[in-house]
Parts: sequence; C-alpha cells; structure tokens
Amino acid sequence: MKTSVAIIGSGPAGLLLGALLTEAGIDNVIVERADKQRILSRVRAGVLEQGTVGLLDQAGVATRLHSEALHHSGILVARGENIKRLDLEQLTGGTGVTVYGQVEITRDLMEKRESTGAQTIYNASDVKLWDVNDDRPYVTYEKGGSKFSIDCDFIAGCDGNHGVSRQSLPPNTLRQYEHIYPFCWLGLLAEVRPCSDEQVYSKHSRGFALCSIRSKTRTRYYLQLPVGTRVEDWTDERFWDELKLRLPERFSDSLVTGPSFDKTVTPLRSFVSEPMQSGNLFLAGDAAHLVPPTGAKGLNLAASDVHYLFTAFHDFYSKGSETGLSSYSDLALGRVWKTVRFAWWMTTMLHQFPEANRFDQRIRESELDYVLSSKAASTALAENYVGLPY
Amino acid sequence: MKTSVAIIGSGPAGLLLGALLTEAGIDNVIVERADKQRILSRVRAGVLEQGTVGLLDQAGVATRLHSEALHHSGILVARGENIKRLDLEQLTGGTGVTVYGQVEITRDLMEKRESTGAQTIYNASDVKLWDVNDDRPYVTYEKGGSKFSIDCDFIAGCDGNHGVSRQSLPPNTLRQYEHIYPFCWLGLLAEVRPCSDEQVYSKHSRGFALCSIRSKTRTRYYLQLPVGTRVEDWTDERFWDELKLRLPERFSDSLVTGPSFDKTVTPLRSFVSEPMQSGNLFLAGDAAHLVPPTGAKGLNLAASDVHYLFTAFHDFYSKGSETGLSSYSDLALGRVWKTVRFAWWMTTMLHQFPEANRFDQRIRESELDYVLSSKAASTALAENYVGLPY
Repeated sequence: MKTSVAIIGSGPAGLLLGALLTEAGIDNVIVERADKQRILSRVRAGVLEQGTVGLLDQAGVATRLHSEALHHSGILVARGENIKRLDLEQLTGGTGVTVYGQVEITRDLMEKRESTGAQTIYNASDVKLWDVNDDRPYVTYEKGGSKFSIDCDFIAGCDGNHGVSRQSLPPNTLRQYEHIYPFCWLGLLAEVRPCSDEQVYSKHSRGFALCSIRSKTRTRYYLQLPVGTRVEDWTDERFWDELKLRLPERFSDSLVTGPSFDKTVTPLRSFVSEPMQSGNLFLAGDAAHLVPPTGAKGLNLAASDVHYLFTAFHDFYSKGSETGLSSYSDLALGRVWKTVRFAWWMTTMLHQFPEANRFDQRIRESELDYVLSSKAASTALAENYVGLPY
Repeated sequence: MKTSVAIIGSGPAGLLLGALLTEAGIDNVIVERADKQRILSRVRAGVLEQGTVGLLDQAGVATRLHSEALHHSGILVARGENIKRLDLEQLTGGTGVTVYGQVEITRDLMEKRESTGAQTIYNASDVKLWDVNDDRPYVTYEKGGSKFSIDCDFIAGCDGNHGVSRQSLPPNTLRQYEHIYPFCWLGLLAEVRPCSDEQVYSKHSRGFALCSIRSKTRTRYYLQLPVGTRVEDWTDERFWDELKLRLPERFSDSLVTGPSFDKTVTPLRSFVSEPMQSGNLFLAGDAAHLVPPTGAKGLNLAASDVHYLFTAFHDFYSKGSETGLSSYSDLALGRVWKTVRFAWWMTTMLHQFPEANRFDQRIRESELDYVLSSKAASTALAENYVGLPY
C-alpha cells in the first residue's frame, strides 16, 4: 500500500489530522491498534477552545456539534463558601468555550471518515515505523495473521503516550520532562442535571472538587483523592457524600445525585518529550505530551499540534515548501509549554498538597485570592482557559 | 514617662508611623536599641510604590524626595540576550515607581522628627513590653545604667525580625510560615553610572542578576550565588566579570565598573507570623514578615502596614472607634500575603534552582515567556510591582 501521510492512531488527534488532510485532497491512511468500539468507549473531557472548534469546522465535522454543544461564557471558582464567576467572554473580549464530549467528536470524525472513503485500519498489531530519517519511510503491521506494509512520504505519530511513535524517535535526541502530582482524581459520570449552569472549580480544605458539565442532563464530577485510591472502595453514596462536603452550600443543597455509569481513577501527570519530530516522523498530542486534566487542555493541545502539522503538510503539498515541516517541533512546543504551564498552575493552585509545608499551602491560597480579585490576573487565567492563539 | 503610642524600633516603619502620628497630633515615643549612626549605615533597597510616596507626603517628609528621586515608568526583563521592557505606566494606567534610597528616607524622617521635638530614645537596652493584653501596657528599658518605664495606650512593634515585639505576643496564638530559598544574593554598591536607565532583571542560565539603580551615578548590582557564599571570596574584579556574563551584551559591552564601597551577602527568605496583633500590641513591617528582595517589596510592605495601623490609631483618637484596631491584623495580612506571594513568584520565576528537576526549570522559563508575551500577565506583574491598592 502507498499513501502520502501514514497516521498512527485513531484518537481525536489522528482522526482530526486525517479529516483535514482528506478535506485538502491529501491522501492518508490511519493505522490503529484497537478496535473502533474500544475507542468510542473512552470517557474523556469535553471543554473545547474556539480554535479546536474552528479546526472541526475546517474539517467539515462540526454540524452536530453546532446543534448539540453547549456554549459557556464563564466558569465558577469556589473557595469554601465563596463563589466567584469569571466571565470568560468579558475578560477575553468575546471568547467562551464549547462543551461537547470528546467521544462525540471521535464519533463525528469516524463517521465523516467513513463517508469520504478514507482508509482506517483497526486492530493493526505489531505496528512498526521504519526509516523515519530517510526519504522513504514506511509502516508495517500485522492483521488477521498477515503482514502489511505502507509506503509513505510522512508519518504522523498520534498514538498516545504509550504508542510506538515516540519510541521510534532516535533515543539520543530526546529530552523528557516529567512531573507526578501526589494525588489522583476519582471521576463519576451520571445522568443527572449539573449542580450549576457552568463548570465549578472548588478549592476546599478536604481537597479539590470539579463539576464538569457534559450536557443539561449528564454530569461528570471529580474528587481529588490520595494516590492509590481504588474505585471499589468508593460506592456512589460515599462519592456523593464527599462531594457535598467540598461544594459550597449553594450547590450541595440542591445537588441531584443518581447511579453512576462510569467511575474512573485518573493519575495526574505532566510530561513533555522534545523534539516532536525527527526526519519524516512527526508527533502530535499525547504521543508528545500529557497534562493533568485541570484546565481541560489535553484534547485542545492535541488539536493545536494538529493545526501546526496540517499547515506544514498542506504547505508542502500545495506549494512545495518545507519550511513548516522543519519548524514544526519548535512552533508546536512553544504553545505546548505555555499550555503545560497553565495546566500545572491551575492544578497546583486548586489542589491540597498532602506533603506541602504550610508556606506553600498559603501561597497557593493567596494566589487564588489574588487571581479572583485582580482583573489582570483573572484575564490571564481566562485567556489561557479559552485557549492562547495559535 | 507617659505617651499615647510607644513605638519600638527606629527603622523606616517606626519612624514613618511616628511621623504620621505626630502630624495628626497623637503623642508618641520611639524606643530604639541601636544608635542613630548605625541605623543610617544600613544599605537597603530604594524602589518605592506610589502608596509609600503618598504616606511620606502625608507625613510631610517628601520634599527632598520629590527634588532628588528618580521616576521610573518601566523595568527591563532580560532572558539571555532577549530584552523586554515592561511599560509599568502604560500597563497600569499611569503608575510608575520612585527610586530613592531607604537610607535617605530614614534620614529625612529622623530630621523631621527632630524638628518636631517628638522623642526618640536611642541606645535603649533590655527593652521589654509588659501587660500588652491589659488596658495599661507599658515598656521598660535601660539606658546609661538607669531603668526607665513608659506607660502608654498602645505599643507598635516596628523592631524588625529579631526584635522583642513579636516575641512578646502570646506564643500559643502564633502561626508562622517560612520558606528558605536555596541561594543568596551578593550585592555590590559602587559610584558608577547604571548600565541602563531602568532596573534590569536578568534571568540567565548562570544565575539571576539585577541592576538596581540608586541614582544617575550610583548603582547596586546583585548576583544570585549559592548559599554559603563569602564576601571575601569575591574581589570586585571577580564580581564584575561574573556580572558581565549574566547581562545581555547591550548592557555588558558598555558596563561601567569601579571600586565597590559596599559588598554584602543577603540570604533570601520568606516569613510571615500571624496574627499581627494581640491586645494592645501591634506589629508592623519586618517584625511580622520578611520577603526576598526580588520585586523590592520589604520597605513598601512595611509602609502599607503603617498605613493600616496609623488609620486605626487615628480613628481611635479622633472618633473613639475601635473597629480599625480590632481588624488591623486581618486587614494588613490580606495585603501581606498577596505581596509575599508576588515576591515568592518573582523570585522562583527569575532564579535558577540548583536542585530543581528539569520540569520545574522549564515551567519557570515558560512562565517568564508567557508573562512577557501576554498583555494580561504583564499587567498582573506590573500592578504588583507598582503596588496593589491599600
């Protein structure tokens, strides 16, 4: 088989890149280890930056999004019983965020891909990338007991943090940066009306809590808990009881509870691997970096990588320019580090640190007090939350 | 002896409080352990917030300041060879900072005090505070072999971090917060033209450097160095050589060097003691808190304490209101913590941390990149640098 761009991974990054390339008439094939249903069963965040929505528009996959998504013009930040609304639109001069589940985006992208006839190979095992630093890279995989090979101009590694793509970069060129947070999140998804019309970030002495709205009838709540927390130790009742203790009374008094249909523990970790390219292999999304979920940046950061990478491919195929390709890593990493910083900052400011000395704890409380009292600092938070410009 | 307010300590905090009280017709006595010349020999910072200048105006001691001080409308932040000017006035809507040495302020305040006949007792040894939680507190001290006592309504503890005042608060009511930074500053003062018209904050892989302008012909330069640095290991020549390596070429190429007339090692430490009052004893300035010198907040924070404390005394003596007195600690601490946070943030963002892992280092670099690229974040830095409102 032969294609222009071989995309490794069928998550939102790979699918979005594929959709943009197909829309621009650039041939591409997606190779995915898992099957389609497993990908659609992953529960993920759903706060989209305007830039991400713009890319989905550009890819021609935003019709359902525009009819079903919620638009949020603000967020609520609670500290104990004090609740402050940050008016994102007012602070940023008109930009809010769009709430639409990541699974829905994946579904829309998959349907679009099927309708255009672009090829996705699911259940591809033993995927390997070859000769990425030569002119003629290729991808091999096994499926149904047979071996296959795809010749291509470029490989886009969109296969997440444990995928083969990053491991295919020359190890001696990699610099990796990692930070493990001393807590995890326990998330509960239920068919219940959210406690508020807008996301609620609650800093509390018992630990951070988040109300993440998925729709008017579906809510995901999160609790900060110690590393080592096990789902089986947390009945729904225990979760709801603890959540009520961490939300201001305005929300806990009228909290609608119900049976969970998903309960997951998420470790919190920041990770960046540099560079994001070598020869004709380019990484995008979780393959190159991870952020803790506070601030909802994971998917949006994957989308901004895809924006830079698609632009580079497009410039190459439409104008013969290699400038975008050679500067991809530097360009993408500039925004990656700003976003990694924001996710780290939101996380450290809003959580309780078990081992933190009292000084650090008070500094973080003072930081939140300051941010909520200063228009400039609120604006800085808001412009990061809605997404820095590409 | 009898007075309304006994002030412990004749540094800028005590002298400023005394001047404001005297100007308002409220009787006060200052008790100071050291002699006058020793106080005037202390080399300290000289960047004044507008609020601090306003208090000096209010105290009637700003005549010389207004004729001699420099007005700075911006600061320069360097990262390697990149230099960015933060236009404080433009960012804050018109507020800059005033450069005028702390020693000059002390001298002006002492002269004013002498001209008004208000009493300062220098060389007072074995100062003790008594019955601070009763209606009739008093202060005792020894001088020239004799023992003295001052009856008063209130005691203002302005005697710095090692003074007797904080130790006179009931120990079981105190909560203390401390952070020691893993580096120190070596400062050199010389009669040389500054390398720039505005303060230069330089983040460099060899360590932080600061050009602190005292006048058009006098400059204090600082180098971040490891804890344990000894002045005697640093000849002037070695200092100038290291400084040149850490400044952008625009400044190092034309650096005017000369013999130092002061060279001092300063440890960097954040410290807050809560509450700032007990009964009729009130702490102000370094007696209650310390900040690292990055951001030039020590003197300005003492001034804002004095503002709140003077207002409370004035409301009591002019209107009989005790509201200001009972809320002094909470009011002052609100601004203290915001300022302690700013000094901690500037310090961590601009210095190299010897033991920091690579992630932390990159986060701090990204933070500086972001601050310098975002108008909102630059404004947040600027509004803290020129001083948050009282």
